[in-house]
Amino acid sequence: MKRFINLKGDIVTEALDGFLATTPDSSLARLDSYPHTKVVLRTDWDKSRVAMISGGGSGHEPAHSGFVGEGMLTAAVCGEIFASPSVNAVLSAIVAVTGEAGCLLIVKNYTGDRLNFGLAAERAKALGYKVEMAIVADDIAIPGANQARGVAGTLFVHKIAGFMAAQGAPLQQVSQAARDLAGRIYSIGLSLDTCTVPGNTPEQYLEATEVELGLGIHGEPGVSRIAFAAAAHLMEVACSKVEQAIGQSDRRYALILNNLGSVPPIEMQILAYSLLETSLAERVDVIIGPAQLMTSLDMNGFSISLLALEPQDKEALFSPVAVAAWPGVRQRGDTVSLVPAVLLERPEFDPSSDAGTEEVIHAACTALITSLDDLNQLDSRIGDGDTGTTFANAARCVVDEMDQLPCGDGVRLCHALSDLLARHMGGSSGALMAIFFAATGEAYERTRYWPSALMEGAERMMFYGGAKPGDRTMLDSLLPAIDALQAGRSMDDAAKAARNGADATAKMTKAGAGRASYVPSDSLNGVVDPGSEAIARVFEKVAQRL
Amino acid sequence: MKRFINLKGDIVTEALDGFLATTPDSSLARLDSYPHTKVVLRTDWDKSRVAMISGGGSGHEPAHSGFVGEGMLTAAVCGEIFASPSVNAVLSAIVAVTGEAGCLLIVKNYTGDRLNFGLAAERAKALGYKVEMAIVADDIAIPGANQARGVAGTLFVHKIAGFMAAQGAPLQQVSQAARDLAGRIYSIGLSLDTCTVPGNTPEQYLEATEVELGLGIHGEPGVSRIAFAAAAHLMEVACSKVEQAIGQSDRRYALILNNLGSVPPIEMQILAYSLLETSLAERVDVIIGPAQLMTSLDMNGFSISLLALEPQDKEALFSPVAVAAWPGVRQRGDTVSLVPAVLLERPEFDPSSDAGTEEVIHAACTALITSLDDLNQLDSRIGDGDTGTTFANAARCVVDEMDQLPCGDGVRLCHALSDLLARHMGGSSGALMAIFFAATGEAYERTRYWPSALMEGAERMMFYGGAKPGDRTMLDSLLPAIDALQAGRSMDDAAKAARNGADATAKMTKAGAGRASYVPSDSLNGVVDPGSEAIARVFEKVAQRL
Repeated sequence: MKRFINLKGDIVTEALDGFLATTPDSSLARLDSYPHTKVVLRTDWDKSRVAMISGGGSGHEPAHSGFVGEGMLTAAVCGEIFASPSVNAVLSAIVAVTGEAGCLLIVKNYTGDRLNFGLAAERAKALGYKVEMAIVADDIAIPGANQARGVAGTLFVHKIAGFMAAQGAPLQQVSQAARDLAGRIYSIGLSLDTCTVPGNTPEQYLEATEVELGLGIHGEPGVSRIAFAAAAHLMEVACSKVEQAIGQSDRRYALILNNLGSVPPIEMQILAYSLLETSLAERVDVIIGPAQLMTSLDMNGFSISLLALEPQDKEALFSPVAVAAWPGVRQRGDTVSLVPAVLLERPEFDPSSDAGTEEVIHAACTALITSLDDLNQLDSRIGDGDTGTTFANAARCVVDEMDQLPCGDGVRLCHALSDLLARHMGGSSGALMAIFFAATGEAYERTRYWPSALMEGAERMMFYGGAKPGDRTMLDSLLPAIDALQAGRSMDDAAKAARNGADATAKMTKAGAGRASYVPSDSLNGVVDPGSEAIARVFEKVAQRL
Repeated sequence: MKRFINLKGDIVTEALDGFLATTPDSSLARLDSYPHTKVVLRTDWDKSRVAMISGGGSGHEPAHSGFVGEGMLTAAVCGEIFASPSVNAVLSAIVAVTGEAGCLLIVKNYTGDRLNFGLAAERAKALGYKVEMAIVADDIAIPGANQARGVAGTLFVHKIAGFMAAQGAPLQQVSQAARDLAGRIYSIGLSLDTCTVPGNTPEQYLEATEVELGLGIHGEPGVSRIAFAAAAHLMEVACSKVEQAIGQSDRRYALILNNLGSVPPIEMQILAYSLLETSLAERVDVIIGPAQLMTSLDMNGFSISLLALEPQDKEALFSPVAVAAWPGVRQRGDTVSLVPAVLLERPEFDPSSDAGTEEVIHAACTALITSLDDLNQLDSRIGDGDTGTTFANAARCVVDEMDQLPCGDGVRLCHALSDLLARHMGGSSGALMAIFFAATGEAYERTRYWPSALMEGAERMMFYGGAKPGDRTMLDSLLPAIDALQAGRSMDDAAKAARNGADATAKMTKAGAGRASYVPSDSLNGVVDPGSEAIARVFEKVAQRL
């Protein structure tokens, strides 16, 4: 299985070094007995308040090192992947950050963590430190389990007890609050597949039609396998499990929506949407996430954690922290505002006449309509063979709408043509022609001089379309023609310039910027670009009629 | 392919609704012509400054809606998955947020986006708005490409131009700066596999031994396929491509490390570590990420983007923003501090003698050593059959070290036994016994009364171990024995209580809390728990010797 790792034995130390060197909080540090003892801790810590220490096996990033910082953890003790840190590592952390105020160890309910943190706590007490422990066992997957697992709900304890410690609350109060919190957290996970420990061969664990409900954050088996279904249904199943656990009451809840590892952000947003459609959401006041908080390596799943709120919890949850991995908190029920969109009706143009203008338009359209087969033929040698059809259809549209066009008003005529071509011509050429006419109209309104207005239109088309002269596009005949007009020369001269420009494209070997697919450059040789041919024919026909 | 989605046609609208309802910034809103027009915008926006509008196809979350907020974007216009938003959607956004100061459109270099944003810009100008556009084409994968793709480097433009707009800079200055920025950004991606558009059948695109270098954020083909290798090597390849593009100079750079979708956090941290080991990193002053910034659905890859820094860029990059998806910025070269770990030497205990104490220890150890086979036999019926070996080995250790133990000092003896058992007994029972003796010693130091000290030890063992009386553990014989001693009764009575307690476990059908594996409850019936049997035999032998 392809994974972004180096040596298996270096995974955790490299990950922590990578984290420490890139996290915005440069006050974080590591103990210098690291990498053997993997402890991340604050250096801006004066020991005057209760130290908050958490940790456990790695593989749950950003937990736990990502939550070290003012207002949350003082230190994180990290084990190897899914393995508890050693007693010595925990003890080193305690000794490094604990002052007179003592420390609180926040431990997820796994035997290894309980025992290693527990023994370290007893050792530290023998050394004279004040140490308390709170154990979080929030997983409700297995009803009546002897040892409920500790999962993402632990974040509630980090945040709320962390707030109390930062406020200067004494150890007994912080630890009592932490244990009290741990007793009112309810979590469950659901995953489309289990995780794979780097270096291990992935198991084909679940069928393509199955998902696992209530699995642990180390890929432990869940409470049941259920059929894969829409996100809304899977979320409903997970939420109803939690609703069973919390029972009926008027209690209000805070909720964490946790990405277990590899769910793409757009799918987490869909899960958030689905969550808010459940009846459980109506009991929720505070939302944290969706975010990667307590992951399980590459697990393609989510977990939800509920905290039954006490009055003092909200201030603690909402208090800002300088911890990059903490995603912030949202008050549910805040209205998602609707901003009235300004009604953008199709612009209306009063029809008006001008014989000369109508003559030019007729000539241009006739040129395109009669060139349908020739242009398709050219295009079929280098593209998908529809240039003639696209231009001819657009021209027919313009002819059909002719008596509705404001032909007596150049500015409005340009905008009307832009609107017409954007709606009916389609594709990139439709958008480009619409841009050309809109920009030309806007320029003509300012300058009242067609040659420079046309040049401004062409320039905007170049800017937005990204093509330059020589790229085998309609620009190669359009620009020389407009240049001629700007130089004060006749329409005949402009048509000749357009023709020369179009013919020259046959010797250009660069694929057009707008081409949908790559064309081998030697197959371009000798073929005139159909777009520039179309423009040349338009100028020729117009010159002939004038 | 299992994905967390509902109806395919609702993916983007549900994701945006999920985002809007959970993002901590409740001032974000949507235009009420949504879901047809998918525009996310600020409602705390007074139009006095230049509006910053970006957008494009969806599937790149948190881009672009996640970057709407004070200091970055004013509005994000979102298309369907990998599809440009319509001209009308862009125009709605412009009209909704643009005042006298005008607006800047920041567009990634894709034909559809250029043309739809471009036509909308021209339409808006015709309506009297001041509109500028900056196009970002930062992908250096294909050297000399006619149309370099716009990828995660676009974030540099959002952040720096967003800062200038927030400071009140006029439109010409902001748009000129944005275009200037776009000209000095260099990005490349590398992925272990391509992305899968929800609802499409996944392609088996790359071999198990291949990775793709330089692929686009829509799964477009990359510049080459290279052999899968360690993260450090893959990062080196990506970085050397960027180094080729930027050439030799003394320029300093800012760098974005972007998660393209489904790389687990721990692997992004390893990639960050690997990145910082490259020669490219020595030219980097500012680091943003690793983070999901511009993803490509579920793509299991990363991209790096470099910005050649100008003096004014740093202030803009480091300025804080109230935008949840912005990961913050790290100054490279900030020392990652090392905190000296307090040397936690093994505690040293001066040997001392006490005949009575030595007699008790000898009796206890003898009981365990001679019970090896019996205890293994009991354990083999319910577990892995090693309880006898574990206890006997620990007892032999204690006997071997007997003349080094501080037998004349109860407190120190307890701590010495704790240390010995933690190091040599191993497993959960080793940690539990170490906790028992450490806590007993700590309590005896306070109380100088063995029965209550032993009870405190047992209580700490229960707290950290998580077992209760009745769970079929050593507690079931240990607690009754200590109870007897606390009641002032003889060691004989304590031994009888322990024996009764052990025998009673044969009728308990609950698997022990510390058991490694689940045991069917009917196979427990009639079998005495080996841990409680061990404790009973210790008390019986001690009573017999005293």
